[in-house]
Amino acid sequence: MPSISRRGETMPESPIRKLVPFAEAAIKRGIKIIHLNIGQPDIKTPKVALDAVKNNTLEVLAYSRTEGSESYREKIAAYYAKNNIHVNADNIIVTTGGSEALSFALGSIADNDDEIIIPEPFYANYNGFANASGIKVVPVVSNIENNFALPPIDEFEKLITPRTKAILICNPGNPTGYLYTREEIKKLAAIVKKHNLFLIADEVYREFIYEGREHYSILQEEGLEEHAIIIDSVSKRYSMCGARIGYLVSKNKEVIKTALKFAQARLSPPTYAQIASEAALDTPQSYFDDVKKEYEERRNILISELNKLDGVVVAQPQGAFYCIAQLPIDNADVFAQWLLEDFNLNGETVMVAPAAGFYATKGLGTDQIRIAYVLEKEDLKRAVHILKEALKVYAN
Amino acid sequence: MPSISRRGETMPESPIRKLVPFAEAAIKRGIKIIHLNIGQPDIKTPKVALDAVKNNTLEVLAYSRTEGSESYREKIAAYYAKNNIHVNADNIIVTTGGSEALSFALGSIADNDDEIIIPEPFYANYNGFANASGIKVVPVVSNIENNFALPPIDEFEKLITPRTKAILICNPGNPTGYLYTREEIKKLAAIVKKHNLFLIADEVYREFIYEGREHYSILQEEGLEEHAIIIDSVSKRYSMCGARIGYLVSKNKEVIKTALKFAQARLSPPTYAQIASEAALDTPQSYFDDVKKEYEERRNILISELNKLDGVVVAQPQGAFYCIAQLPIDNADVFAQWLLEDFNLNGETVMVAPAAGFYATKGLGTDQIRIAYVLEKEDLKRAVHILKEALKVYAN
Ligand SMILES: Cc1ncc(COP(=O)(O)O)c(C=O)c1O
Ligand SMILES: Cc1ncc(COP(=O)(O)O)c(C=O)c1O
Repeated sequence: MPSISRRGETMPESPIRKLVPFAEAAIKRGIKIIHLNIGQPDIKTPKVALDAVKNNTLEVLAYSRTEGSESYREKIAAYYAKNNIHVNADNIIVTTGGSEALSFALGSIADNDDEIIIPEPFYANYNGFANASGIKVVPVVSNIENNFALPPIDEFEKLITPRTKAILICNPGNPTGYLYTREEIKKLAAIVKKHNLFLIADEVYREFIYEGREHYSILQEEGLEEHAIIIDSVSKRYSMCGARIGYLVSKNKEVIKTALKFAQARLSPPTYAQIASEAALDTPQSYFDDVKKEYEERRNILISELNKLDGVVVAQPQGAFYCIAQLPIDNADVFAQWLLEDFNLNGETVMVAPAAGFYATKGLGTDQIRIAYVLEKEDLKRAVHILKEALKVYAN
Repeated sequence: MPSISRRGETMPESPIRKLVPFAEAAIKRGIKIIHLNIGQPDIKTPKVALDAVKNNTLEVLAYSRTEGSESYREKIAAYYAKNNIHVNADNIIVTTGGSEALSFALGSIADNDDEIIIPEPFYANYNGFANASGIKVVPVVSNIENNFALPPIDEFEKLITPRTKAILICNPGNPTGYLYTREEIKKLAAIVKKHNLFLIADEVYREFIYEGREHYSILQEEGLEEHAIIIDSVSKRYSMCGARIGYLVSKNKEVIKTALKFAQARLSPPTYAQIASEAALDTPQSYFDDVKKEYEERRNILISELNKLDGVVVAQPQGAFYCIAQLPIDNADVFAQWLLEDFNLNGETVMVAPAAGFYATKGLGTDQIRIAYVLEKEDLKRAVHILKEALKVYAN
């Protein structure tokens, strides 16, 4: 039997996937599961986007332009301008989700055995994309005690080697909810310029910022043009994860030219999804206001309820729709499985994402879980109550 | 300025892309271009597929299952059974086009600096996917004189090294139109078993076979189950290239398990496209009969017209909708550009794909072009007439 590749062997599995069989078994036993583990919003997709697809008159569903249509990219540039990010259509490549933008970005700037520094905990699939390309993820630890703020710059500096090609941040963060300040972005800008690195910022949650704070994009930072690569996505912004549309944005012409070659090989992004995503740019502001208000309320409830639990430490998320909670337990993997296998409160239990999968350093985050607040407020409240009762039982 | 990766530098550009500015300039000068250069069918997408999307009632466009829904994969398995390929839903991963299936397959079986043997000329993007993963393409030459039949097995044998992981074929072939016989597949089966390699077959043109011939899939070959990986796609079969749906199919459980990890990292294939593609499986047989008849007629006209041209050698395609023609010229790159820049017949010219881009060996195919017969018969006839007159002028 021929053998699979080493990179295939080392491809990480989704940190949630392991729990799926236990969840399925629980459902079979009649247990209801409240899902705190997934980043799939329950929010409705804007009608204008759904309608554009329903009303399409295509007769031949043809390949689109590799980089996305001119008209769509022009409209994306206008969207960025409204967000104080000044780019033009040529700085944008439309991709199959932010996921593909990440693959293209990594492939364009790093070779096999090159290194990318990422503050941990981070979006687990960064591991997958890096591993697929033979790139080494070098983590720099951020801490729950200070909300997962940017680690001190000399922690980065210590990790930079001749093989380091980029620093990758997620802003605001999944799973941390942390929003980098303007000062932190400036510090990162200084270090990437000093060491001639790229700064890749995954800004797919740009719109979801709370307490009246403002998002400061790496492309707002002057002088960073040749270093900055933005990863973006329509998935969460318009609650259209299934479309599979994202963007890679850079003012560095070499980066765009190179990423375009990766894009050419796969021909084009999905056509229907582009129709939906282009139309989504006309979503009325009230939609976003409502969605943001809803998430902020959910966040407030979730955090205040979690803060009431004995021995639970929770980071205060300022953006996105996730938070990391540290629990008075040894091993969140075991606990998450136990919640599905052995616990229920009046026939209900919760499914959580063990946070260890978001850390690259072994042994970190083992007592932490990630909670996504993409549920109705009542369900969130009940979920925290279930967690509270579960922790009591589990302690014994 | 930070530098891009070596793999980024060596990513091949599409062989047609270089000609695009010349085509645009010709159009600006008022010249009409007949496109012989692209594999985008003009055939209508089945109504049942288009309607399924128009009538969808989704309110939240959510991520789908990473590997495609159970129901869709069951239906795909039934489609294969009708084609004498016996697989079940668990042997299938739904991908974002055949393109993504190719990426996952290569990543799952080969590491950086590993080698894949491919008969040339071959679909140019194999170079792109291999290069993105640091995999070396090792070509084995097939010849226009015998229609690009399978090269002698000892030519493969000579090229096998400890780093060889797979043989990749396209059946029927783009750009050759060649259909491998059962005997040729058996020879390939024997060699991959002997050397413990994978056999990857890109069968995206499976349905387009002419003269009453039959397609013999690598998964029809008994005893090849652990070695065989099929790449498939809805793009051409249902004229829905813009959907971006394909499949990776294998009975080798390790391959599926590994490819699934690559798939998990990118979350899911596009949702609308899956709706269209699942519905497309209900396309009435009459649609395929009509399409095949149309392509076969086009092929007959194209080949017989080309055969009338002095000094032109054309391979007889038995499948797909491409053919390679050898012209009495030195350099098809220069000729193709000249056709756009300096030639027209009554205000019309043709755009062709220089075949050198389909060869990995430098210097091969320089006097050949690839013609895609995805045009109306009248246009094809006129195109060959233009080519004939162009060759006369070019000779002087
Ligand atoms: C931080 C982050 N980046 C990128 C993605 C990828 O999203 P998509 O490929 O749907 O655009 C996600 C999805 O959850 C995410 O959380
Ligand atoms: C031989 C072959 N394989 C794979 C593909 C990829 O097609 P898609 O990604 O649209 O499924 C093509 C497209 O032209 C092709 O010709």
